[in-house]
Amino acid sequence: MRTVDLIQRKRNGEELSPEEITWLVDSYTRGEIPDYQISAFLMAVYFQSMTDLEVGAMVESMIASGERMDLSAIPGPKVDKHSTGGVGDKTSLISAPLAAAAGVKVPMISGRALGHTGGTLDKLESIPGFRTNLSTDEFKEVLDKVGYAVVGQSDTLTPADGKLYALRDATATVESIALIAASIMSKKLAMGLDGLVLDVKVGSGAFMKRQVDARKLAQLMTTIARRAGLRAQALITDMTQPLGYAIGNALEIMEVSQTLQFSGPEDLTRISLELAARMIYLGKVAATLEEARDIAAAKLRDGSGYQKLKETIAAQGGNPQVLDRFDLLPNASGALEINSPRGGYISAIDAEEIGLASSMIGAGRDTKEDSIDPAVGVILEVKTGQKIEAGAVLCRLYFTNEDRLAEAAERVEDAFRISTSAPEPRELILEVVS
Amino acid sequence: MRTVDLIQRKRNGEELSPEEITWLVDSYTRGEIPDYQISAFLMAVYFQSMTDLEVGAMVESMIASGERMDLSAIPGPKVDKHSTGGVGDKTSLISAPLAAAAGVKVPMISGRALGHTGGTLDKLESIPGFRTNLSTDEFKEVLDKVGYAVVGQSDTLTPADGKLYALRDATATVESIALIAASIMSKKLAMGLDGLVLDVKVGSGAFMKRQVDARKLAQLMTTIARRAGLRAQALITDMTQPLGYAIGNALEIMEVSQTLQFSGPEDLTRISLELAARMIYLGKVAATLEEARDIAAAKLRDGSGYQKLKETIAAQGGNPQVLDRFDLLPNASGALEINSPRGGYISAIDAEEIGLASSMIGAGRDTKEDSIDPAVGVILEVKTGQKIEAGAVLCRLYFTNEDRLAEAAERVEDAFRISTSAPEPRELILEVVS
Repeated sequence: MRTVDLIQRKRNGEELSPEEITWLVDSYTRGEIPDYQISAFLMAVYFQSMTDLEVGAMVESMIASGERMDLSAIPGPKVDKHSTGGVGDKTSLISAPLAAAAGVKVPMISGRALGHTGGTLDKLESIPGFRTNLSTDEFKEVLDKVGYAVVGQSDTLTPADGKLYALRDATATVESIALIAASIMSKKLAMGLDGLVLDVKVGSGAFMKRQVDARKLAQLMTTIARRAGLRAQALITDMTQPLGYAIGNALEIMEVSQTLQFSGPEDLTRISLELAARMIYLGKVAATLEEARDIAAAKLRDGSGYQKLKETIAAQGGNPQVLDRFDLLPNASGALEINSPRGGYISAIDAEEIGLASSMIGAGRDTKEDSIDPAVGVILEVKTGQKIEAGAVLCRLYFTNEDRLAEAAERVEDAFRISTSAPEPRELILEVVS
Repeated sequence: MRTVDLIQRKRNGEELSPEEITWLVDSYTRGEIPDYQISAFLMAVYFQSMTDLEVGAMVESMIASGERMDLSAIPGPKVDKHSTGGVGDKTSLISAPLAAAAGVKVPMISGRALGHTGGTLDKLESIPGFRTNLSTDEFKEVLDKVGYAVVGQSDTLTPADGKLYALRDATATVESIALIAASIMSKKLAMGLDGLVLDVKVGSGAFMKRQVDARKLAQLMTTIARRAGLRAQALITDMTQPLGYAIGNALEIMEVSQTLQFSGPEDLTRISLELAARMIYLGKVAATLEEARDIAAAKLRDGSGYQKLKETIAAQGGNPQVLDRFDLLPNASGALEINSPRGGYISAIDAEEIGLASSMIGAGRDTKEDSIDPAVGVILEVKTGQKIEAGAVLCRLYFTNEDRLAEAAERVEDAFRISTSAPEPRELILEVVS
């Protein structure tokens, strides 16, 4: 088998056999194929995509490149929730404790902020003392005792995916539905889950800008799950405007706390409850989705989700008091108000622009080597559809230094569109794929 | 400037600025951008192509990566001829001596066989003693004294192209019109030519399978030439069947000799004369193309082209007697006749299959590291359109050992298509682009 022939066939739109895909991934992981051939292959995949059979073979060989996690000694259904990433998307930190409070075990492997989107690990690390680098034993212990544990990706789980992802990141080949699906699903399947709830974001603030692409990704991931015997459902949810009001790491932890205390934003609460309900349903804690929804709502109302997140924080070395006393979290030193130039209706809040502005003042990173400022970010004062007067506060930028602040403010201003008539209301949960 | 952003913009079909293209080529040549990013960029170019402006910038920066050859001390017009490569294509070895006999200086940088196509250097090296690795001074001396000199590509001329070509070869990104044009034209412009005749082959035996692609390539190359002030014309010529009857290195030298003695195949003679005429015309030895055609024909009839090739062979260390005594060339030890299974008309002879079969028995190479057997190849006994009886000899395979002979014979048999009615005659010279 010659690598260049496989690249050429993929380039020409042909389907490679499962053996050929496996050979490529294995040889690359062992260092027998150079990066420059695989990056050309990945770009060919970007343009020609892969069939379900090819993606399946890639997933299998990426799993086989590392160790599978064995959670069988821990009682209870193991169900994870994964979001493709958005702006202000802190649903993991709400739905996971709610599901855990209902008896689901949630072994969550999370990522970091990149580009305009945030990362659950960065958000949690804004909590003083919180450790995301647990050993496998520590991780299992937290999962067993508390029910919800969070770690970063390790080198032992799907190392092939780690190596491929780093290459994709440097070669503009991240945005391929086939490659995104293979990357996510190989990690999830290696975890030995019983159920998986996927939140596929669509809109300006998401990687998928068009609903047809989001649907393809959702279908591909649920197909891979089904073939592997993993119960999975995907929600396709709106990411045209940021989710909730807070964007930025410590700011989002504060909003998570409010939401788990039943006083959070309506959109964030709704999606988080629906995700939690589906985790509970897939974990077979409830016989029907309706029953699962009732359980999730009860766990929110009675504060047991809120208590569960405190337990996870404490178990992973953090100070759980931060959820009550926000002064214990990193706080910004200044706030800049952005006012509306005129009255009217908020017809759009471009989530990507808000995310980029927030990243620009330190909440995110341009490259993986950049460090994060946990205190900074944006708090919206309005949401799409709202009627405002001229001069009303649209949002506030929370900053710790004024580098790039003016630039970020301009970006944020441009993100708000004001029109004379009310916009059509937009569905929050657009589709369910299972 | 970040490489990944430039890859992404090209991937998305955007045009890069000349400065951005130059930066990419320069940084890559200096080793500041890794292979894996450039190969992803090249694959993106394969799918999205490049604008004339982008190709122009790439050509300029590839030229600037090395030294230009200074031929100004040598009197006379310098005109080269370049073919995009075909099966049985030995026109360079006929048209160049004819043009040189007419007073044109032909400084030819040639390539080697790869895949199903032959290379002029390999053909010449089948002549005992012939040296293609002349120093620049030796090359200039032969050019000055004889008028026709041939060398392989050096490391000092367009090293960026050399580096990029090696990467393209390993990553299935050779077949991009924009990249082919940039590669050819950077080398030609670095030579400081006065004129250039391009022979763009189209058909199964050529890299360009469709005439529309061949036309694009021809237009792009002549546009680049015009902008650089180089007089250039391109012929688009048929490569559905092999050119002439001989395929294989020494076998083609024999056919070159016959053709320069006015007893060669009609198709090969016609194309070679037309190419020579245009070299003579672009070199301003003749005032009109008609006059140039008369000169080329005269140089063929009076044997001065034939003498000129002998002079070049002698000047480059080879034995010129090979053109008279074919027993001085490497000769095959056996011949295998391929007979027609039935009578009828030859409706097609698939040039690519013939080229691959010839390569398979040793006339070509699969990879650049393979060695060549100069003696072997194929001699056709028929051409497309000819009427034959059942059992007639279609061609002979000349071999020195029987490795892969049966496989090659099968391939050759499949290459001939026999039909009951005569095929439409096909034009040999399809278009002229200037």
